[in-house]
Order: sequence, then structure tokens, then C-alpha cells
Amino acid sequence: MKLLSFRYEGNILFGPKVKKEEAVWDVRSIAEAFGETDFPTTIIEGIKEGLQFVEKVRKLTEQAKTSENPEQFKHDFTKIEWLSPVPRTPKNVLCVGKNYADHAAEMGSDAPPEKLMIFTKSPTALAADEQVLPVHAEVTQNLDYEGELAVVIGKKGRNIPKQLAYDYVFGYSIANDITARDIQSAHKQYFLGKSLDGSCPIGPYIVTKDELPNPHNLSIVTKVNDEVRQNGHTANMIFKIDELIVEISKYVTLEPGDVILTGTPAGVGKGMNPPKFLRAGDTVQIAVEGIGTLVNRFA
Amino acid sequence: MKLLSFRYEGNILFGPKVKKEEAVWDVRSIAEAFGETDFPTTIIEGIKEGLQFVEKVRKLTEQAKTSENPEQFKHDFTKIEWLSPVPRTPKNVLCVGKNYADHAAEMGSDAPPEKLMIFTKSPTALAADEQVLPVHAEVTQNLDYEGELAVVIGKKGRNIPKQLAYDYVFGYSIANDITARDIQSAHKQYFLGKSLDGSCPIGPYIVTKDELPNPHNLSIVTKVNDEVRQNGHTANMIFKIDELIVEISKYVTLEPGDVILTGTPAGVGKGMNPPKFLRAGDTVQIAVEGIGTLVNRFA
Repeated sequence: MKLLSFRYEGNILFGPKVKKEEAVWDVRSIAEAFGETDFPTTIIEGIKEGLQFVEKVRKLTEQAKTSENPEQFKHDFTKIEWLSPVPRTPKNVLCVGKNYADHAAEMGSDAPPEKLMIFTKSPTALAADEQVLPVHAEVTQNLDYEGELAVVIGKKGRNIPKQLAYDYVFGYSIANDITARDIQSAHKQYFLGKSLDGSCPIGPYIVTKDELPNPHNLSIVTKVNDEVRQNGHTANMIFKIDELIVEISKYVTLEPGDVILTGTPAGVGKGMNPPKFLRAGDTVQIAVEGIGTLVNRFA
Repeated sequence: MKLLSFRYEGNILFGPKVKKEEAVWDVRSIAEAFGETDFPTTIIEGIKEGLQFVEKVRKLTEQAKTSENPEQFKHDFTKIEWLSPVPRTPKNVLCVGKNYADHAAEMGSDAPPEKLMIFTKSPTALAADEQVLPVHAEVTQNLDYEGELAVVIGKKGRNIPKQLAYDYVFGYSIANDITARDIQSAHKQYFLGKSLDGSCPIGPYIVTKDELPNPHNLSIVTKVNDEVRQNGHTANMIFKIDELIVEISKYVTLEPGDVILTGTPAGVGKGMNPPKFLRAGDTVQIAVEGIGTLVNRFA
């Protein structure tokens, strides 16, 4: 199932994409129409229920489809404002540094870090697919993209054992870990350079994990204005998703709705010779196999 | 006003300390009893209203005091479970690294950083005054304390100008930025070593800013088992509170309920020769002039 969050008539809603249509099922209004009272009011409440929630959503959309007037329960994509699939994460977005050897090399590291490097992005940086993003020219001249697979956590846990790690995954999405390289290096700790408003677009969907049984078999391709810049593959992550969950949860309690950005492959703007940073007018497209394409224009 | 958050009969509540008593006014129940319908249900909603909220709370406690049975609106401190004054921050707790020259020196730096160093602690690490905290012996042998003045943000803002910075402050508290030194250095970025469960006790109160007109005129004293370890003064911060707000908000949107830990003076365990880390059975007390004392035992 492809789940999205959106704003419609001022309300923050969520629902699954209508198959073969550019529209979303307004699953809360279906729940209300069919008297399903025990239905989550926020996507995080849904995520907490895991595949049981996915099953509920599936049943409700089936009911809507076979009802007298299914159209009343759909919103055309042109009528909604897209949001990050998790509109607000419960803590900062968790990010893995240098998790692909070729990217560590292009950033000047002799070798990838032996120990997992985790930094965070402020949830105020979250943005959506198709959202026009600021280049923040008043504070940075070195804005850069990083195409990444995003993991959405479904269950609270600490000290999660490796063989249970995927039980804690709700689904997957695509993220651009936008980074002001000058701020990142001047301030040593990455947080400030990683947390500008709009610097964490995620989307378009969460693909629930039942539809993506092998998240380490996916190509990641990032284009800037139709020029391919990153051509990576999730098979090449150094710390795999289960290891990320084990390692992070050794220290930090994970919660439903937390998002882990799994690192970026080679091909960022800073790694080019000469470096090519983002400019107003650029469009960045990040395609992850089996999920879709995250598209953002900069202005 | 000294505001605290607490749990009573399963509910998360807040209120001001009763003057000269070891008790708290249950200000929500006062609001209900006196038909004040326009009263915040969470402390963050209150913080958002700023000094108007403080005024409302003051009026309600006056009404309670002069009512027939004031005792019904008080809870004795022995009957409540203390919480962090902001039980859950909207984003990770914002922390300033090396903001006192003597501490930068004891950590081996030739000079304090020229640019502000900001890292974060997960809100799952928040803890309360008097809470018994874990030493996490399974992941660290180098658990250390850092006594700090905490600033509670009252208003949303970005690009805040220096002359308006204090308008964005709601009040002040005391924090212990507990750090697993071994994890902090092994993982390069500080987040993991700073985010163990219970590693961010804050409290006991938020002192509202009207009662602390000069936050740079306060002594900070940290004791471990009655031995004075840190004997600092907020006059010695390198980046002052208004500069912190200016610098952070240049990059990140601040929100009501955000907490900034302003850095620690010299005297941490790692800086001693030989280093002295925290052990089960230790008690750490951090006293900040005009606010109170934050006390935590480790087990």
C-alpha cells in the first residue's frame, strides 16, 4: 500500500493512493461514513497499529469502492496539498552519515567510519514531494542534495535484537537529506547545516513493508535538472537496515513515526570537480525502485 | 513563578509551586472549578501564551487561596511524580558544545570553537528532578555529568534579531547534559552518546523570565556525593543567551517548548586526572542561583 499525508480544506489527512488514478482515498471520511469508530485520527496512531492498520485501510477502501458513490471518498491529487508522509516526526529525523563507501570516499574520508555516525535533522525541516524549497542564499552558498532511502519505524523499542529488527519497520519512503555544506563544516556538529527549513523533503508515499520485502535490492537515482548525479543501489549500504535498528536502539528509544535516513551513495554536488551546488531554478528528482520519485524545485 | 509538571492519578498536569509549602497548585482543577474555560490543557500550550499565561495562573491561584477550601487544589510533593517541566519537547533538546572557555580547555581543545557548536539530545532522554537514573553499564563505562542552565523557548521564530531575543524566552531551568563519553567519541557526531534514556534530567522548575531578569548573573554549582565538582558562573558563557537565540534561529525554526542547554563550565568527570565517571549509587546535585537544585541518584 502507498500511503500519503495531505492537507485538504485545512485538515491534515492521510490515505492510500487510489490504484491507477492520480487521487487519494480519504480514509477517515470512509471510516466515518461506514461507522468505523475505532480508526486512527493521525497517521502516527495508524503506524503504531502496524499491519493491522494497513488491513483496516484496505477493507475500508474496498467498502468505498463498492459503495453507491465511490467518488465522494476520493480527492484528486490536483485538489490536495501534499505533506511529508509523516507530517511531524516524534523526535528529530535520524540520519546515518557515510553509509556508502563511495560517498565516504568522495567526501575525503580515507575509509568509512568504523562506528555508526548518527546526526539529526529538526522536524521543522520536513517538507513534501512537489513542494518548492528555499535555497537559503542569505546563509549558505553550498546547498547540496543527498538522495536516500527512508525507513519509517512502526513500533517503540530499545535494545532491539537483529532477528526482530524488521518487526519494527512500518514502511519505506524517499528522502532528500539537503545539506548546507558550509554550515555543516563550520559548526563541526552537523545539526545546524542539516536543519534549514525545507531541507528534509520526504515522499511521495510510505510504501508499507509488505510490498517491499527486500529493501536492499533497490536502485537509487538522483537527477538534477535531468542530469543523473547519483546512481546508487541499496545493496551497497555499509550498515544494513536491521543493523541500523540494532545499533541506534542500543542507545536511543525508537518510536512509531520515527524516520531513519539510511545514508546517500556517491554523486553529491560537493563531490564533483568543481563542486556543483544547488541554485534557484534547479529541480532535484530522487527515484527509488519500488517506491516512486521525490521531486522538488528550488526557488 | 516556579512552574512544574507532574503526574497525579495517571494524568500529566502542571502548576506553580505553592509559596513556602512543599506542594503544587493543581491549576487545571482550579480553572475547572472557577469556570475558566479558556485555559491551556498542556504546559506547552501555556508556554505559547507567554506572560499572559503566567498572569492567568497567578489569578487562578489567588482565587483558590481565598476560596472556602484551598487545600483541595493543592497536591503535596510527596503525592506527585515529578516530570521534566516540559515533559516532551517538540524537537530534540538543543545543546551548545564548549560554551565556557575553561570547559573547552579541560576537554583538550586549544581554543573554544569559533562558530557555535549545536548538537541534540533525543526527547526520549528527558527525565525529572529526583528521578533515579540508569548508569547504562551495558553500553558505557564513561557516563559523565554536565551541569547547565536551560532556556525554555516561548515563541516560534526564525531569524530572530538580537534586540528581540529575550522576547522568545519563556523561562529558565536546570539541566544535566549526561553524556556517555566513550559513545560520544567513538561515533563522532554526539547524538548517540548524548541520548541514552534518562540522560536529560531537567528541573525542578521553570522559573519564568520575569523573576530572573539577568540570567548571566547566576552561579552554577555541581556536586557529586557532596563533593563540589563544577563551580561556574553564567557570566562566563562565550555565546550569551541572546546570541544563542540569534545564531540557532538563523538556521533552525525555534518553537514554544523548545529547550536550549547553554553549555557546561569546567569540572566534568572526564576533565579530572584521573577521570572520575558516574557509578551506581552516586548522587548528582546541580544548583543554579535563583532557580533551585536538580538532584538525581544513579542506580
